[in-house]
Amino acid sequence: MKEEHEKERRKLAIVVQGGTIDKLYCAFILASTAVATDIEAHLYFTFWGLQMLVKGAMESAGLPATYKHIEEKMRENLKTMNYPTPYEMLKRLKKSSLFKMYACSPTMEMFGIKREDLVPEVEEIVGAATFLEIASTADVTLFI
Amino acid sequence: MKEEHEKERRKLAIVVQGGTIDKLYCAFILASTAVATDIEAHLYFTFWGLQMLVKGAMESAGLPATYKHIEEKMRENLKTMNYPTPYEMLKRLKKSSLFKMYACSPTMEMFGIKREDLVPEVEEIVGAATFLEIASTADVTLFI
Amino acid sequence: MKEEHEKERRKLAIVVQGGTIDKLYCAFILASTAVATDIEAHLYFTFWGLQMLVKGAMESAGLPATYKHIEEKMRENLKTMNYPTPYEMLKRLKKSSLFKMYACSPTMEMFGIKREDLVPEVEEIVGAATFLEIASTADVTLFI
Repeated sequence: MKEEHEKERRKLAIVVQGGTIDKLYCAFILASTAVATDIEAHLYFTFWGLQMLVKGAMESAGLPATYKHIEEKMRENLKTMNYPTPYEMLKRLKKSSLFKMYACSPTMEMFGIKREDLVPEVEEIVGAATFLEIASTADVTLFI
Repeated sequence: MKEEHEKERRKLAIVVQGGTIDKLYCAFILASTAVATDIEAHLYFTFWGLQMLVKGAMESAGLPATYKHIEEKMRENLKTMNYPTPYEMLKRLKKSSLFKMYACSPTMEMFGIKREDLVPEVEEIVGAATFLEIASTADVTLFI
Repeated sequence: MKEEHEKERRKLAIVVQGGTIDKLYCAFILASTAVATDIEAHLYFTFWGLQMLVKGAMESAGLPATYKHIEEKMRENLKTMNYPTPYEMLKRLKKSSLFKMYACSPTMEMFGIKREDLVPEVEEIVGAATFLEIASTADVTLFI
């Protein structure tokens, strides 16, 4: 038992509910760090997070209302730093076999979003039961 | 040890801090999915989440400032879909023996909310220590 | 194995991403409750949470846009109750050997924040890998 356990890879499971750029960066930076340190990263996109998977949406992600006044300045900073955009980070993540992303089917129904509306990086469209199944064997679970 | 462990039911523990309709749906959909798949769901309502347990409050829950402009459209969609309201979902959850909900006592003090102000579905009013005790044996912990 | 395990202290790991007073209170109340009940509390400050560690910032933390209209009333309530401010809670937490806080280095880069800009309570400036390492052995993980 113990030996078997030791060989198992650690797992990070995140519900990406937020659709603002600060939340997307948090999710993608944590996931990138995870896969870089041999930890599986499972991201379940729901609500505003799922909406960011609609083609073209992530490129125009902004800051939440509370921080709207510094959005322009932040965009400039990120450009000056040559910081990757959230979508660029997602595309890099997809190259790792340790990264898995899921689109939440109830959200798609609720907002009338169809599979063909989503970016091609999405593979699986699943319900919350699938996420809970994965999360219940994860070492770190977060709702972002 | 092993056998005993296998018989133990999995557990989901959520801090419901948000009081907007998107956060309530996330918490209740995850909890509903949990109990439907034989996972215990423990919801600890604090701050804006707790305020939604005041009689009549949940019925008028709205979207956060960032998404205020689509609130009307979302309400219409949900009606057309015959989607249950958050309060209806809560009442259904209460029928499951796997569901437990807790009202955060410090929040009640902070906002001057009394027991009689809360919906009858609330059974236990407890502090954060009780939640941490439950969460520390949970398989999935989330802050919504 | 079992005995060793029983002696290990339980652990709470929180990503403090929010910088509004409601999120800071949630993080600090959970952390205070944890250390009071012999649970280690590890707080990783990132994004808006990290910005609240800049000298003088926490004292002027407000409510999110959604709840801006009740900010004044809440401040008055807290004063009447003699409730400790978030910064006072942080200073108390620092007295516990079970409490550890970390400033997120990528956020500091992104916002051009320097070590000398931060309150003296910050000891460690680390990346997300350090947080994931800690969180993966924690019993409760939350993103606030």
